[in-house]
Amino acid sequence: MISSKPVRGTRDILPDEMKIRDQLEQKILEIYRIHGFSRIETPAMENLELLLGSEGGENLKMLFTILKRGEKLELKQDASVLDLCDMGLRFDLTLPLSRFYSNNQEVLESPFKAIQIGNVFRAERPQKGRYRSFKQCDIDIIGDATINAEIELIDTTAKALLAIGLKGFTIKVNHRKLLSAIIQRSGFSPETVGSICICLDKMDKIGVDGVTRELLNKKHDDKAVECLMTCVTDISLENLEQWVEDTEAVDNLTQVINTIKSLAKDNFKVVFDSTLIRGMGYYTGLIFEVSYGPYGSSVAGGGRYDNMIGKYNKVSVPAVGFSIGFERIINILMEEKNDNIEKEKSAILFYDPKTDNFGEVISLGDVWREKGYIINLMVMKKKFGKQIATCNNGHYQGFMVFGRDEEIKNF
Amino acid sequence: MISSKPVRGTRDILPDEMKIRDQLEQKILEIYRIHGFSRIETPAMENLELLLGSEGGENLKMLFTILKRGEKLELKQDASVLDLCDMGLRFDLTLPLSRFYSNNQEVLESPFKAIQIGNVFRAERPQKGRYRSFKQCDIDIIGDATINAEIELIDTTAKALLAIGLKGFTIKVNHRKLLSAIIQRSGFSPETVGSICICLDKMDKIGVDGVTRELLNKKHDDKAVECLMTCVTDISLENLEQWVEDTEAVDNLTQVINTIKSLAKDNFKVVFDSTLIRGMGYYTGLIFEVSYGPYGSSVAGGGRYDNMIGKYNKVSVPAVGFSIGFERIINILMEEKNDNIEKEKSAILFYDPKTDNFGEVISLGDVWREKGYIINLMVMKKKFGKQIATCNNGHYQGFMVFGRDEEIKNF
Repeated sequence: MISSKPVRGTRDILPDEMKIRDQLEQKILEIYRIHGFSRIETPAMENLELLLGSEGGENLKMLFTILKRGEKLELKQDASVLDLCDMGLRFDLTLPLSRFYSNNQEVLESPFKAIQIGNVFRAERPQKGRYRSFKQCDIDIIGDATINAEIELIDTTAKALLAIGLKGFTIKVNHRKLLSAIIQRSGFSPETVGSICICLDKMDKIGVDGVTRELLNKKHDDKAVECLMTCVTDISLENLEQWVEDTEAVDNLTQVINTIKSLAKDNFKVVFDSTLIRGMGYYTGLIFEVSYGPYGSSVAGGGRYDNMIGKYNKVSVPAVGFSIGFERIINILMEEKNDNIEKEKSAILFYDPKTDNFGEVISLGDVWREKGYIINLMVMKKKFGKQIATCNNGHYQGFMVFGRDEEIKNF
Repeated sequence: MISSKPVRGTRDILPDEMKIRDQLEQKILEIYRIHGFSRIETPAMENLELLLGSEGGENLKMLFTILKRGEKLELKQDASVLDLCDMGLRFDLTLPLSRFYSNNQEVLESPFKAIQIGNVFRAERPQKGRYRSFKQCDIDIIGDATINAEIELIDTTAKALLAIGLKGFTIKVNHRKLLSAIIQRSGFSPETVGSICICLDKMDKIGVDGVTRELLNKKHDDKAVECLMTCVTDISLENLEQWVEDTEAVDNLTQVINTIKSLAKDNFKVVFDSTLIRGMGYYTGLIFEVSYGPYGSSVAGGGRYDNMIGKYNKVSVPAVGFSIGFERIINILMEEKNDNIEKEKSAILFYDPKTDNFGEVISLGDVWREKGYIINLMVMKKKFGKQIATCNNGHYQGFMVFGRDEEIKNF
């Protein structure tokens, strides 16, 4: 017998969860749309050369690649993945969007405000809450070099999160150039910036002491480490200018945070976080992340990536994106038993297949469907009392028996 | 420079089409849901053994398979696809549903009425209107052996097609056993039934004469061919019993067609079609297909597949499914310039980034969003008259200028 399990690291989604997912997705989509964003879609697979040529960082190690078809493969022992495969599954929605924009630029509005909702695929080591196929909800603004693009994305994403019932989240904001400036100002050489960032990224988990220890273990200069750690603990939006000379980056960061603060009222927080990194190699300016709950899990993230579209276009085009991690949010809302889910009017119409005309049963169902009910047809069993008891599990509010009841009775 | 084209045989979906797709998908989903079906989702990839072990027929030749990861591959010249790959992309939604049902049976309602909406993947030779990644909208009833399952599926699918604006379609119905009986009764041996079916399937395209010629070319017995062709031309729902002895199949076919006729009123046709085949090897009973338009393109198809779930479960479970081919329908509706698409209230809010406070611009947008408008923010250009002229392309109904207009003006 063949196994009925889904492939490793993926899962089946059952009706109860699916109903919640559909509702949340529609609410997020609606918020995006009323803010003037337009939905687009790209295929789940992309040419392998395109994926491998991207700055996808760690995600490139987690590619699912698709075997070439039709031709006879040269199966030499030293064959590379490009010898064997010609496509791969997308690992995010940003790279496909950049390709999409270059491919369709002449028929798109400018600036182009895109919505993408779809699954992405990463061959991660399976662990709780991490899946190899998961949904992202992205908005991006392409063709706007001003920070109004960042403000609009953060504002719209925050409104989407509020609309689906997430309360009290924190939006952390940082600037790639600022972080790099701080690291170099502390005495590290430009080549080490990348690896220092990887250490700083662990601040959430191992704290200042942990990061300090790790940097010292890696034989970095004591003084530089001390200076950097003082900086990241002391730095704030108010004293930023003491630490960083790049006034444009400082101004942009300050203005984005202050504008979002004025829009946030008391619904959520927005803060400057000097140790926010965001893994992707392609970010060039402001970066942001939404953290939620006691463990500060990241539920959304994004930033500016001004150089990516230039790979397909001769001209580089400014771009910013913000992506909601749908799976994390579903997990949170399911655990919180969120009561934001809409209840529907629903009932079972029982019938007896031996005596009732099935066409008439369907037509009676339609009468109640037109009144706004979900009507499920079910065969009446001999032990009807027992049957009703098992149906009364919260999925249906009421029932009626064909030819007997005129109205729906509550369970 | 890297190519910005999507992978061969796939395409990018632009905002205008996407808006229509989303509306149609929601309408189809809504009809399915009010009839008591529940949406579920399975991953796009399945274990390769599962896919290869299925009765997917021609689709198995069009599998996209995914290279194994992590381990060092043994690249011998005679390596099989199972040596190299461990997963594949699903080619339909029926096989994944069967696996899903076996995997989750104990927590599902019985009978289980499933909705699946998602993309499937087939490495078809690219041609107009055929894509390698395309969307299907399926409903299935699992656990009901009576023809009420067929009736409900056909009725619900027809209602979904009507809801999205498809009018005057024809539902063709046939029975696998009936077809097999007719072929054998004409004098063909049981082993040839499969290949005869493949010929009969071309009736739509090459007519009775073409099929006759093809059967004779294949050295089948003249008399058997003549007898079969007389039968498929003369057979009708009224004289079925003259041709076929299997009274259960005849009764079922008649009852399904008559019940659907009584429900259809004048909205669509339902007919018996003795040459309807449906490619999939897994069908066991009634099969159906929806044809539409002057060329009779198939826009939906399905049938009973009572033996598939038994592959994972010890017990075989009766099942019927009906799948709407979303891409075909989109093509038809886009070509017909269907006016079934809902118009939304939408406007552009122009602002001057030099003088206007962007936070206040966003807030003014929100005021109108609360009144039910889609509001897109746009920077006002120097040549505003020219800018307005290019915006007035049907995407927005009106506009306002921040700090100047109190109300939205029509374009």
